[in-house]
Amino acid sequence: MSTPIALPFDLSAGTVELTREICDEASVSGAEAHLVDRLVATLEGFDHLELIRHGNTLTARTNLGRAQRVIIAGHVDTVPINNNLPIRRELVDGIDHLIGRGTVDMKGGVAVQVALAAELTDPAVDITWMWYDNEEVSSDLNGLRLLAEARPDLFEGDFAILGEPTRAEIEGGCNGTVRIEVRTRGLRAHSARAWVGENAIHAAAPILEKLAAYQPAQIEVEGLVYREGLNAVGITGGIAGNVIPDECMVHINYRFAPNKSADEAIAHLTDLFGEWDITVVDRAEGARPGLDAPLAKRFLTALGVPALPKYGWTDVARFSALGIPAVNYGPGDPLRAHADDERVAVAEIEDCERGLRAWLSTSDLD
Amino acid sequence: MSTPIALPFDLSAGTVELTREICDEASVSGAEAHLVDRLVATLEGFDHLELIRHGNTLTARTNLGRAQRVIIAGHVDTVPINNNLPIRRELVDGIDHLIGRGTVDMKGGVAVQVALAAELTDPAVDITWMWYDNEEVSSDLNGLRLLAEARPDLFEGDFAILGEPTRAEIEGGCNGTVRIEVRTRGLRAHSARAWVGENAIHAAAPILEKLAAYQPAQIEVEGLVYREGLNAVGITGGIAGNVIPDECMVHINYRFAPNKSADEAIAHLTDLFGEWDITVVDRAEGARPGLDAPLAKRFLTALGVPALPKYGWTDVARFSALGIPAVNYGPGDPLRAHADDERVAVAEIEDCERGLRAWLSTSDLD
Repeated sequence: MSTPIALPFDLSAGTVELTREICDEASVSGAEAHLVDRLVATLEGFDHLELIRHGNTLTARTNLGRAQRVIIAGHVDTVPINNNLPIRRELVDGIDHLIGRGTVDMKGGVAVQVALAAELTDPAVDITWMWYDNEEVSSDLNGLRLLAEARPDLFEGDFAILGEPTRAEIEGGCNGTVRIEVRTRGLRAHSARAWVGENAIHAAAPILEKLAAYQPAQIEVEGLVYREGLNAVGITGGIAGNVIPDECMVHINYRFAPNKSADEAIAHLTDLFGEWDITVVDRAEGARPGLDAPLAKRFLTALGVPALPKYGWTDVARFSALGIPAVNYGPGDPLRAHADDERVAVAEIEDCERGLRAWLSTSDLD
Repeated sequence: MSTPIALPFDLSAGTVELTREICDEASVSGAEAHLVDRLVATLEGFDHLELIRHGNTLTARTNLGRAQRVIIAGHVDTVPINNNLPIRRELVDGIDHLIGRGTVDMKGGVAVQVALAAELTDPAVDITWMWYDNEEVSSDLNGLRLLAEARPDLFEGDFAILGEPTRAEIEGGCNGTVRIEVRTRGLRAHSARAWVGENAIHAAAPILEKLAAYQPAQIEVEGLVYREGLNAVGITGGIAGNVIPDECMVHINYRFAPNKSADEAIAHLTDLFGEWDITVVDRAEGARPGLDAPLAKRFLTALGVPALPKYGWTDVARFSALGIPAVNYGPGDPLRAHADDERVAVAEIEDCERGLRAWLSTSDLD
C-alpha cells in the first residue's frame, strides 16, 4: 500500500480559502493522519518553526528567546460528516458564509492559526502552535491530553489561546461538569398486586421535583458571570408492562462555575440528593477565566472585543490545570457546532486573523 | 421426520402423580403439540367424551342432554423452564409439595380436570372441558381466544370455571388492565447552555407526584372487594449525557375493578393525565365475579371455601365477555406462578379434585 502524497495547503489564497481547503480534507476523529501530514508539508519549509509531531498532534514553535511565550492551540478533528462536505460558500441572510462540517468546530480557527504560524516570522512573543487530534471523542484519546503527558516540556507558556468558536469574541475559562446517577430502590411485584411491592419510579418523584425547582446560580469569577445548570439528562426504570419496578435511575449533569472544584460540585450534589444512592460517572474541573493575567489583559485591550464566560467545557481547562491562563478565541457561533448546517461567517475568520496578527505583532507584549 | 409416539398419561396413579407427569412433559408456550397429542391419547378411549382438536387446543365434552352446561378450562402452556424440571416431590416447611415449572400455573389444575373428565361419565350437568395453548404469551396467540373465534358454538354454557391457581379457593372475576404512555415534551439543547432548552424529564415531575400520591380505590362488585392499582411500570428519557432531553415517557399500568369498562378506565386516566400526551398501548376488560349466577351460588355452597376477588387478569374475562359467568378455581398460590421455585401443595390438588368431583356429581345441579 502506498502512502498518499501529502500536498501542502495553499497559504497564498488567504485564510477563508484555507479554511475551505482544510475542511474539505475530512478528518473525523480517529482519521486525522492525512490532514496532519498535509500540515507538516505546509509548514516544514519555514525555518522559524520547530516542528514536533506526536501521533497526529503537531506542534510548531518559535525559539526566538522572547521573555514570554504564548501557546495557541486547536483541534483538527471533527464530528462525523453528514452530507455536509465539500464546503459551499454562500450568502445566508445576505452574509457571506462557509457552510459545512468543521467550519465552526473548528477548522476556521485552525486555518487562521496555520496561516499566522507561517507568516509571523518575528512575533513579539515566542509562540507554541499546537494542532491536536481526537478532541470530539473520549478524553482518553484527546491529543492535547496525551501530548501534555508525553511532552510536558512543550507546555511552558505564560498564556494560552484555544481557537474554539466564540464568534470572534473572547470567552474566558469554562464551567466544570459532573455527572451522577441517582438511584431509587423499591420492591418488585406483579402490577396486578402492586401493594405487595414498592414502586421505585414513584420514589423518583422528589428527585425530579428538586431538579424542576432548582434555581441555578450565576456566579462571578474574575469579572465574568458564569451561569450554572443542573439537569436530568436521562432517566430509566421499569422491567415489563406488568411489573412494579424495583429501581429507577436519574442521570444528572451539573455544570458548575469555575469558582468551585469538581469535589465541591459533588459535595453540593450530595447535599441535594444524598438521601438516595449516588454514583459519580463523570467529572471535569472548570477553568478560571485567567483574564487577570498580564498577557490576557493586553490581549483584551488589543482586540477590543467583549470578554464573556465560556459555558461549555473546553480544553482551556487543561491549560488552566497546568497553571497557564487560557481563553477561547475563534470564528464561529458555538451554537452551530456539530449542527448539520454548521456554518461560519467569513468576516469572523478575517476578524480573528486580524486580531491575532495585530496582538502577536505588538511590540509591548514582550 | 417421524412423529414421536404420543403415550397416554397414566390416570390410575391419581391427580398428584398425573400433575407430575404433565409437568414433566414440558410445554412452554408454542411447544404444546406433544402434550396435547398425549392428552388426546389419554382421553380418546372414553365414549362419554366428544373430542375436538383445534390447533393445540383440545375440547372434550359430554352430550348427555342435561339442562345446564358448565365449561371447565385450563391452559396447557407454561413460561420458560429455568432448571426447574423434572418435578421434585419434597416436604417444604413440613408440607408435601410438588416443585417445578408448571405446578402452579397451571398443570395442577389441568391434571385435576383431565382426571375428572375421564372419571365423570355421568355428571349432573353437561361439561365442556377445554385445554388450550399460548396463554402465557401475546393475546393474539391465545388458544381460548382463537377457539372462541373459530368455534363459537363450543362456548355455550351457563357457568365457567378456569383452573388458574387460587390456593383451592374461589376467585371471582378479575380486574381489567389498561396501559398508557404519557409523554412530556421539551426543547433539546446542549446541557452546557441548558437555559436555551426545556427539560422534558423535569416536566415529568408532576406525573410521578400524581402517581406517588394516588390512593387506589377498593371497589365492591357483587359482594367482592376489588383492589385497584395505578403504577408507573416504566420511564425513559434522555439523549446523551450532555443534552437537555426533549421528551420523557412514563409508562403507566392501571388495574381497574370490574365495575367499570376499559373505556371508563381510560377516561379516568385522561382526567388524571390529560394535560400531557397520552397513548393507550394495551387494554383488557375486567370481568364481574359472576357469583350471583345460580350455578355459581351452588358451587360456592358445595365447596364451602371463601370467595375472593381475583386481581390478575385471567381468561375468565373472555367468558365474561361472552356472557358466561366465570370463576377461577385451582390449586397453587398465584404469587408463586412464574417463580423459579414454583411449587404447589399436594393437598391443594387433592382439595380441588374432591371439590370439583363433589359439585359436578351433586344431583341438585341440574
